[in-house]
Amino acid sequence: MSDFNTPEIVEALAAVRRRWRESQRRTLERGGREFPSRDALERIVNQLKGALFPLRLGPTDLRRESEDFYVGHTLDAALNGLAEQIRLELHDPSGLGAELAESGRWAEEATRSFAASLPHLRERLDTDVLAAFHGDPAARSVDEVLLCYPGVLAMIHHRIAHRLYELGLPLLARIVAELAHAQTGIDIHPGAQIGDSFFIDHGTGVVIGETAVIGKRVRLYQAVTLGARRFTTGADGSLEKGLPRHPVLEDDVVIYAGATVLGRVTIGRGAVIGGNVWVTHDVPAGGHVTQAVARQNGQHPEPVTP
Amino acid sequence: MSDFNTPEIVEALAAVRRRWRESQRRTLERGGREFPSRDALERIVNQLKGALFPLRLGPTDLRRESEDFYVGHTLDAALNGLAEQIRLELHDPSGLGAELAESGRWAEEATRSFAASLPHLRERLDTDVLAAFHGDPAARSVDEVLLCYPGVLAMIHHRIAHRLYELGLPLLARIVAELAHAQTGIDIHPGAQIGDSFFIDHGTGVVIGETAVIGKRVRLYQAVTLGARRFTTGADGSLEKGLPRHPVLEDDVVIYAGATVLGRVTIGRGAVIGGNVWVTHDVPAGGHVTQAVARQNGQHPEPVTP
Amino acid sequence: MSDFNTPEIVEALAAVRRRWRESQRRTLERGGREFPSRDALERIVNQLKGALFPLRLGPTDLRRESEDFYVGHTLDAALNGLAEQIRLELHDPSGLGAELAESGRWAEEATRSFAASLPHLRERLDTDVLAAFHGDPAARSVDEVLLCYPGVLAMIHHRIAHRLYELGLPLLARIVAELAHAQTGIDIHPGAQIGDSFFIDHGTGVVIGETAVIGKRVRLYQAVTLGARRFTTGADGSLEKGLPRHPVLEDDVVIYAGATVLGRVTIGRGAVIGGNVWVTHDVPAGGHVTQAVARQNGQHPEPVTP
Amino acid sequence: MSDFNTPEIVEALAAVRRRWRESQRRTLERGGREFPSRDALERIVNQLKGALFPLRLGPTDLRRESEDFYVGHTLDAALNGLAEQIRLELHDPSGLGAELAESGRWAEEATRSFAASLPHLRERLDTDVLAAFHGDPAARSVDEVLLCYPGVLAMIHHRIAHRLYELGLPLLARIVAELAHAQTGIDIHPGAQIGDSFFIDHGTGVVIGETAVIGKRVRLYQAVTLGARRFTTGADGSLEKGLPRHPVLEDDVVIYAGATVLGRVTIGRGAVIGGNVWVTHDVPAGGHVTQAVARQNGQHPEPVTP
Amino acid sequence: MSDFNTPEIVEALAAVRRRWRESQRRTLERGGREFPSRDALERIVNQLKGALFPLRLGPTDLRRESEDFYVGHTLDAALNGLAEQIRLELHDPSGLGAELAESGRWAEEATRSFAASLPHLRERLDTDVLAAFHGDPAARSVDEVLLCYPGVLAMIHHRIAHRLYELGLPLLARIVAELAHAQTGIDIHPGAQIGDSFFIDHGTGVVIGETAVIGKRVRLYQAVTLGARRFTTGADGSLEKGLPRHPVLEDDVVIYAGATVLGRVTIGRGAVIGGNVWVTHDVPAGGHVTQAVARQNGQHPEPVTP
Amino acid sequence: MSDFNTPEIVEALAAVRRRWRESQRRTLERGGREFPSRDALERIVNQLKGALFPLRLGPTDLRRESEDFYVGHTLDAALNGLAEQIRLELHDPSGLGAELAESGRWAEEATRSFAASLPHLRERLDTDVLAAFHGDPAARSVDEVLLCYPGVLAMIHHRIAHRLYELGLPLLARIVAELAHAQTGIDIHPGAQIGDSFFIDHGTGVVIGETAVIGKRVRLYQAVTLGARRFTTGADGSLEKGLPRHPVLEDDVVIYAGATVLGRVTIGRGAVIGGNVWVTHDVPAGGHVTQAVARQNGQHPEPVTP
Repeated sequence: MSDFNTPEIVEALAAVRRRWRESQRRTLERGGREFPSRDALERIVNQLKGALFPLRLGPTDLRRESEDFYVGHTLDAALNGLAEQIRLELHDPSGLGAELAESGRWAEEATRSFAASLPHLRERLDTDVLAAFHGDPAARSVDEVLLCYPGVLAMIHHRIAHRLYELGLPLLARIVAELAHAQTGIDIHPGAQIGDSFFIDHGTGVVIGETAVIGKRVRLYQAVTLGARRFTTGADGSLEKGLPRHPVLEDDVVIYAGATVLGRVTIGRGAVIGGNVWVTHDVPAGGHVTQAVARQNGQHPEPVTP
Repeated sequence: MSDFNTPEIVEALAAVRRRWRESQRRTLERGGREFPSRDALERIVNQLKGALFPLRLGPTDLRRESEDFYVGHTLDAALNGLAEQIRLELHDPSGLGAELAESGRWAEEATRSFAASLPHLRERLDTDVLAAFHGDPAARSVDEVLLCYPGVLAMIHHRIAHRLYELGLPLLARIVAELAHAQTGIDIHPGAQIGDSFFIDHGTGVVIGETAVIGKRVRLYQAVTLGARRFTTGADGSLEKGLPRHPVLEDDVVIYAGATVLGRVTIGRGAVIGGNVWVTHDVPAGGHVTQAVARQNGQHPEPVTP
Repeated sequence: MSDFNTPEIVEALAAVRRRWRESQRRTLERGGREFPSRDALERIVNQLKGALFPLRLGPTDLRRESEDFYVGHTLDAALNGLAEQIRLELHDPSGLGAELAESGRWAEEATRSFAASLPHLRERLDTDVLAAFHGDPAARSVDEVLLCYPGVLAMIHHRIAHRLYELGLPLLARIVAELAHAQTGIDIHPGAQIGDSFFIDHGTGVVIGETAVIGKRVRLYQAVTLGARRFTTGADGSLEKGLPRHPVLEDDVVIYAGATVLGRVTIGRGAVIGGNVWVTHDVPAGGHVTQAVARQNGQHPEPVTP
Repeated sequence: MSDFNTPEIVEALAAVRRRWRESQRRTLERGGREFPSRDALERIVNQLKGALFPLRLGPTDLRRESEDFYVGHTLDAALNGLAEQIRLELHDPSGLGAELAESGRWAEEATRSFAASLPHLRERLDTDVLAAFHGDPAARSVDEVLLCYPGVLAMIHHRIAHRLYELGLPLLARIVAELAHAQTGIDIHPGAQIGDSFFIDHGTGVVIGETAVIGKRVRLYQAVTLGARRFTTGADGSLEKGLPRHPVLEDDVVIYAGATVLGRVTIGRGAVIGGNVWVTHDVPAGGHVTQAVARQNGQHPEPVTP
Repeated sequence: MSDFNTPEIVEALAAVRRRWRESQRRTLERGGREFPSRDALERIVNQLKGALFPLRLGPTDLRRESEDFYVGHTLDAALNGLAEQIRLELHDPSGLGAELAESGRWAEEATRSFAASLPHLRERLDTDVLAAFHGDPAARSVDEVLLCYPGVLAMIHHRIAHRLYELGLPLLARIVAELAHAQTGIDIHPGAQIGDSFFIDHGTGVVIGETAVIGKRVRLYQAVTLGARRFTTGADGSLEKGLPRHPVLEDDVVIYAGATVLGRVTIGRGAVIGGNVWVTHDVPAGGHVTQAVARQNGQHPEPVTP
Repeated sequence: MSDFNTPEIVEALAAVRRRWRESQRRTLERGGREFPSRDALERIVNQLKGALFPLRLGPTDLRRESEDFYVGHTLDAALNGLAEQIRLELHDPSGLGAELAESGRWAEEATRSFAASLPHLRERLDTDVLAAFHGDPAARSVDEVLLCYPGVLAMIHHRIAHRLYELGLPLLARIVAELAHAQTGIDIHPGAQIGDSFFIDHGTGVVIGETAVIGKRVRLYQAVTLGARRFTTGADGSLEKGLPRHPVLEDDVVIYAGATVLGRVTIGRGAVIGGNVWVTHDVPAGGHVTQAVARQNGQHPEPVTP
């Protein structure tokens, strides 16, 4: 072990923090972190998964006749933890909830409301599981789907995150979404509204924006983007915020891998968007959009650099 | 702490589970989970990695003269764990193996067969490591490749998963594959047949389908899809299952980033598929396929929205 | 538990290892691993994150008036751990530093130099955090950005990894980069030079090559590749190594999702590259490059396979 | 790291084990440990403690309205674990249960019987807690007694261990007893029969033998021994086994610190045995036995060595 | 896995708990545990040990120049944890502090007061360490004493516990004392007043009562009891509480192994109590008390049963 | 969370440490702990236990045919860890080994020597296990003895500790001994020489001094002290160090519970010391020493306070 001038560096880092806080107008000299914790939310989401699907995502030694004991105990722990995280989001001095004097009571109410929605949430997830099972020729059982499919994992997180988003907890919602993003490569903004029986296959690289609206029985493949058109800015040059800016997908739409749909366009019921296609206008119900076919060279092509 | 009506929600969740189980015709009221565990398999795969590459993926304090002790002890633990997971897959009432009365004995045989294939599996992985080392100008040593390259990690998982798949254990195989998918963004179905010296660079977004067949010395880059053509359905409207539906890549093929190859086409020996290209027909040996070049605007282009 | 012929397999695995080592001319019969550890680096990077952003990425119960105690203690642990890992990289018999007789002393110096750069590194990361906050209409606070955005996580890792790369520690740098790649799907080679206020949105599938040079206030979206042109090889058929082969992006460039920029081209100040575009030539300052628009079929299109 | 001739020592240790096994006539060359685990039992006993006293020895965040969920889930885990340990004791080739062909079924029955006795066991422990509270002038609440008093901890273990002992599981019983012995210094053989409202104060050094019989409302202090008279041996010189050889204490007996009661003597109802006294004969009901008073020297005693 | 009638047993256990609570007049149907946690206090005491003796009881990789960082960070964690435990003791509905409306504020004050006493507490412990070093011929260094001697460990706990006791926190104090008792077999009531340079050698079985008063430079050996005379009871038959009832030991007293001193007697300055002696009266300053010598039999004694 | 004036207390604690170090003449301002770790030794001893008794104290899933793999791997880890701890003891600036320039090499040699003695050490422990089995009427199998008897645990530690003591490592030896003391209440100084087939029953409170010499087939019960006579001091008033000052027990001696043997006396072959007896002179071979019988009161004794 040797000497790395730690005290000097500690002082220099403190100076940088001071400058940052001044630039951000955070001048409190005392007080704690009072901020939600990604680790805590990871634990809570795992508990919720177990409570929602006890025999598949709960402990391996669980038995059917004791399911309710497990569900009740786990749910209780999850909800207590969630209430604390909600309180922390509402308390955050830089957050929107600073004016709420009674954040503790509000956190309790929000948690109760969240809890009450869990049975319905499970029902909707059951439709997603069935959609995955029926949508993938390689799927052998609903159990495999629940245990293995990243698209299903992403939807469990999304339906939880969306509920938190609806309850006015955007930061918690975002963390729950990012936990799934990190594991699956599927990036669904918690604000997106997604109907029953939704299925994402493979999933890596999928991006679904905040104001997207998705109907029932929609199917997406990997690397599909449902994004905003980016060049438009306000009069002062700043980016628009909050407006509907992502696509609407009606029921039974299918979008193949790598396709990009941008802006507040509507893809009509049953429309099919082919792979790698770029769409910035409405597509009518039943419409099919495909890419121009690539040029293929013969057996001895000119040297071409891609 | 406060009150979230946990008992009511527990009851409501139990009702949802009952409905689901009735809809899935799962009417057992008793009995355990009896289902493979993702956590258990993660532990087992980590043990196998250590047993296969003891001085690189084993414990940091391992010394060469004690390698065999470590390998033997770790292998034993891995195989015992694997045998238990195999038994669980075979026992699963909804699985294909329900009719196997002697699942325990069968699990043992399958484990023994899996174990016997490990030395050959390591030999094939050595060819993959060399392929990565030679294929990437940024690679400095085979050790860096083994420790850092997601493509190599994905292949360790795939060669294990494929062996399980061959042994009639599709669920375990799938879990092993998804563990790699979650970490690397590379999604290789365990059924895919992949020859020696295979290299995937960067890897995020690569998808390789169940019936793909890949020769020797093949090289893929990120976001390459070897997929099925999706629009075809059976007479009853359901998706085809089990048929060869993914590409065949002969030896020495190279496919650049973002290319998509769909359907049971054959890419001939030594062919090169350029980046972002979309291929749905055979490509002859030595063929080069490239994308139409994009339109480029000048310095003061018309406002164009992508 | 049963018998899996472990001793036989151990022996066979040892034989494979012997063959590999002979083929790699590693003939030492004794000695330890003496190789950096991914787990150790993960721990070290987590400690550094806490030391850099104590109230956001440090422990949840930290309070402002005790920040410096936490920072000092954590930094010390991180630097001691790092010095050991540096020593291991320099000691690696197959590495470039084998000739360094005094690797311990050198490791200490490198660690001290790394430590001294941390305050500046934090300042640059602050610019990245602000860039993310201003660049995403969905971002609500700088705290959300720091806690949730994979692009910010990737940049924390990159700025650390790049410093290690500059200090002549390519293996450690690579491991640090891959830790972020695994979590975010963003693959930035540690050698890439990246200016202040850099922002990657969504991020999955982004690849930035070793010799890329990126100016200030640059913005990338998911699945952007800044790669090398791959077909060129040397006279002996081997791939070129070490030469500048990746793009240069000047200040204020924006590149939308899925775009690919290949080779040592220069994208001029303020240029905009549209989504899914393929660029292999220079783009002048202020230039806009967009994709040819896709063909769209009507309501009852001919059956088309993508 | 260096070389310690590990292979040689491994071989020598194997030789010692072989000699031991031959001397013990254990000639199986294969097969597993199949033996109960101290760690497993420690976990099980901790679960049972939580299930018996959920709000005091259960998790800190438990709330009253969710007690039953916790109790049910924890109990289930404990009983499953216990059934497995019972099976292992019955399976032990050197144990008494070797002849039991159906050890699995028997283990299940024993577990069920054990479980059924838990409510009564808790009732008896409640009397012990009250006895401790009333017996110690320093005790402030029944909660303090339950949380802090080693004598209460020892009795929780003993009442569990005694039940296992009654069920014909002496090894499990012994392990449970030793877990308490290690933590409290109180060594109660699982065979000892102990009535309600039993209290041991301080407790270190207490030893209670296998055939001891203790009535209700008995109180012991530290270092009390209820032992066997040891000199008697059988005709062949071996020690007697199994016979009643420890004291009988009738109701309301008090024995002060350091007293020793040896052999199958009866201490009558309400008798009091003074500190450090040595008793080898019956004491009638209500009797008091005290030590001869020690000799005390004056202010300037002759140098005396103790 | 099988069926153990868990639901029935859960119900029966709930019935027992109801009866117990009724008998204890605890009729709250809701609310949490709100009770101090032994595990939490164990963690806190370990943190305090590290903060008091950083280079000996702190982390193994600590370096002198970073001591203060470690001490500050660890202390902060310990004090925050302690404040929470204090709040729980004060909140306990069955405790003495129920009437305190502002238990949170009081907990903070008590913690601050406790913290302020730590430097002096360390100074006193230094005298104990030196006393151990000088008092044991087998001691080789003060470091060995600090790291190995159970008597020193017991005193670290006691001086912490006594401070908590003085602050009106008898339950926390008791738990801290019992943590040491469990590890060392030394049972010191937190109320005992003990002067500087106190040394207990070996220690197993030592018991020191609540109202004992011990001067400076006192030395005890294993199994010494400083107890109360037990037969005296109040008019109503209940045991006396709270009165001075344990011995006073003046400076420089030595008490050898197994000796018992009972009641509010005074052992004068410099007195020596021999091993196994039983003392119930005052001993003057400088006095020596020894045991009557045991009877010794010759080479062929009559068979005598002890 | 609140404010506890942590910085002030940190400063005050630093001042106390400075005073202590000055008083102990430890004036180094820099440098690390460089001191053995109790936690590290606990881990090492547990590994050694597993390597010595793999199927009983090793992992529960170990199988006989893989014993040697486990033993080899575990031993290697234990010996590497031990070598590091030895190096730390020899490096300790306040220790006896400060003058050893080549402590690393010496540590390696000591470890090798320790390792070489393990097979013989196991053989001796086998005699202890048998002695326990034959010496306790309640013992049912050698397995129960090995798994449950604190006396056996204490001897495993002692035989390891004594070997370290012989190798000139008194601090490591002491820590190993204290680990057993904490768990069993049996305090055997590592210097004590103990012959084969040694058995301590129950054990709590046993103390065996540094220079004790114990023959074969000796049996002790709880609370036996083999101590030094304490009053003798040197000319300068300091306690004697290093001289033989504890008893010699010849073969086949039995000492019953609570007996105390003090000073360099010899208890002759086959002698029996009764319970609670105090012995300060030699006892001839075959001699029996018993206590004066206690006075017993009748049914209605005078009120006597013990």
